[in-house]
Amino acid sequence: MTKTLLLLPGDGIGPEVSAVARRVAGRLISQGLALQVEEALFGGASIDACQLPLTPEVLAQAKAADAVLMGAVGGPKWAGQPYDKRPEAGLLALRAGMNVYANLRPARCFSALADASSLKRVFVDGLDILFVRELTGGVYFGEPRGVETLADGQRRGVNTHVYTTSEIHRVARIAFELARGRKGEVCSAEKGNVMEAGLMWREDVQALRDAEYPDIKLSHMLADNMAMQLVKNPKQFDVILTDNLFGDILSDEAGMLTGSLGMLPSAAIGDPGTPGLYEPIHGSAPDIAGRGVANPCAAVISLAMALRYSLGAPALADTVEAAVEAALDKGARTPDLGGTMTTAAMGDAILAGL
Amino acid sequence: MTKTLLLLPGDGIGPEVSAVARRVAGRLISQGLALQVEEALFGGASIDACQLPLTPEVLAQAKAADAVLMGAVGGPKWAGQPYDKRPEAGLLALRAGMNVYANLRPARCFSALADASSLKRVFVDGLDILFVRELTGGVYFGEPRGVETLADGQRRGVNTHVYTTSEIHRVARIAFELARGRKGEVCSAEKGNVMEAGLMWREDVQALRDAEYPDIKLSHMLADNMAMQLVKNPKQFDVILTDNLFGDILSDEAGMLTGSLGMLPSAAIGDPGTPGLYEPIHGSAPDIAGRGVANPCAAVISLAMALRYSLGAPALADTVEAAVEAALDKGARTPDLGGTMTTAAMGDAILAGL
Ligand SMILES: CC(C)[C@H](C(=O)O)[C@@H](O)C(=O)O
Ligand SMILES: CC(C)[C@H](C(=O)O)[C@@H](O)C(=O)O
Repeated sequence: MTKTLLLLPGDGIGPEVSAVARRVAGRLISQGLALQVEEALFGGASIDACQLPLTPEVLAQAKAADAVLMGAVGGPKWAGQPYDKRPEAGLLALRAGMNVYANLRPARCFSALADASSLKRVFVDGLDILFVRELTGGVYFGEPRGVETLADGQRRGVNTHVYTTSEIHRVARIAFELARGRKGEVCSAEKGNVMEAGLMWREDVQALRDAEYPDIKLSHMLADNMAMQLVKNPKQFDVILTDNLFGDILSDEAGMLTGSLGMLPSAAIGDPGTPGLYEPIHGSAPDIAGRGVANPCAAVISLAMALRYSLGAPALADTVEAAVEAALDKGARTPDLGGTMTTAAMGDAILAGL
Repeated sequence: MTKTLLLLPGDGIGPEVSAVARRVAGRLISQGLALQVEEALFGGASIDACQLPLTPEVLAQAKAADAVLMGAVGGPKWAGQPYDKRPEAGLLALRAGMNVYANLRPARCFSALADASSLKRVFVDGLDILFVRELTGGVYFGEPRGVETLADGQRRGVNTHVYTTSEIHRVARIAFELARGRKGEVCSAEKGNVMEAGLMWREDVQALRDAEYPDIKLSHMLADNMAMQLVKNPKQFDVILTDNLFGDILSDEAGMLTGSLGMLPSAAIGDPGTPGLYEPIHGSAPDIAGRGVANPCAAVISLAMALRYSLGAPALADTVEAAVEAALDKGARTPDLGGTMTTAAMGDAILAGL
């Protein structure tokens, strides 16, 4: 059965890194992978063409695909958009519309790149954390929300953090399942000491572990302490489970520990049988967009995650990841990694390993 | 005019480090400082004695003092308390009751200790960031809040992030004023790309800067990006302005960059003429409590901040800080700093410099 991959190159460096991922997919297809690649407008690029960051047609196309690979969204050009029509609103609508509630974010340090970290090598070489971040709830989507003007002319801004037990259980379940294929350890973060909903998060996660995953070693950590522990001794963690907002912050902190943000992929998945959403975590990087120097590795590794989790080709996922690692081992480096290679040349180096 | 300092030793290592701060205060008094020191029960210690983490009497005593020095609150012993009667609830009630809305948290790296950081020395030696964290608003205090049980037996937990313009302006004003005595640079953090109230925070901070502090260089950064930038290049920051929750997480991350959490003080201040609340940020550390090995430096430096901001003795504040630094330069080290000194011996080493 031919599977479908929808590319949403988006904005900034998104189209540049997506082009390399597309070349990699093309190579795999020429070698026999039954995959059809589509492409659509998204984010600022879609605003420019259709006044909307995500059109209903593109959302339908995403839901009909087996996997969606997103490049990046946003940039200064669209800063003046109304709040619910910004490129980021398109991304949130895509995540919600696809119901991809579990965001997998590996923070893995490539040995060849460990010296690029601001941390001493001993703290990061071999680092391999998997964040499982809740992605379709919490303060990102909670109601009521918005800004009102008070009688005295002041403003009052509100956002709501809200979770139900079933939202917590479905993402915790994915963390526990993935931990079984790793060291079997999950550490869950919240601020249960100041947020009732954080204490509920902790209790619900613990209850699911006790009922269904007694083999998993579950611990709980306050989010502020985790922010410290990630700096002090990041290798203490295996799988980290968080809500949407804490996961946004803590996984970015952990990503930077590796020293190579341009290497970090992500996957967003939902219920079995539904399509996943894959994105490099580096963002649209407007400062280097259009210059052909962006690092395409994260986009290519995101494609590998798509092969593993949505396209039924885990062995090819390993092959693609190995090709990236081989290119690095041979010294291939874009400017963010301290080298001088262009995006296309880095793509050539990866393709050479396929 | 004799000023009053209220000590709230609290729980865990709180009493141990507070005892050293009390000795330092005693030395300054014997040298002519017009200061009266009081002490009261707080946190778990107050729960044990009076069933409440903060009694109305102690709150009144705090409001009548010129400065309050808190040791630490909390510990496993009180984990089973009802939510609004935990030690931490006492701390939140104290902050709100004293109306100390601006939390100053220096993340400063002592050159003698720079090698204790997990970061390479070049990234942290000379590090000197001042966090100004909003302390009496946001999700810590917002309503509605709590956990309800739904018809289908599931639970639903809610906390509310809320700020008004005047809450934002009064804390931003303190950040701008303090920046004037430093490099004049303020970086403000929020998630304005997903939270309307975050965008409002950004706009209100900018409006105050434009109207009253045109000499300040103000920048804005998304909180997730700041979590990365703190790891990548922490020395890029001078003053960082945040809301309550982001400040909790980001200032702890930054504190750990210095490698020496046991060195970090904090001050919480409100309107001019009202008492300030001072606390070491290390927490109650139940694992080492009662063993006489806790590092008292953060408590002593918090006392120095009290001398500077609330007790009208900035020169003595410098003296106390210099005495701590001198002790470190002579090699005084508690176990957390890689040494073997007891809390009391570290106190002796500091007192030797007074
Ligand atoms: C672009 C933004 C809306 C997004 C988020 O906050 O989730 C990004 O930071 C991420 O982590 O994917
Ligand atoms: C103890 C806790 C309530 C407190 C907070 O979250 O504010 C602590 O983490 C801090 O930062 O002072």
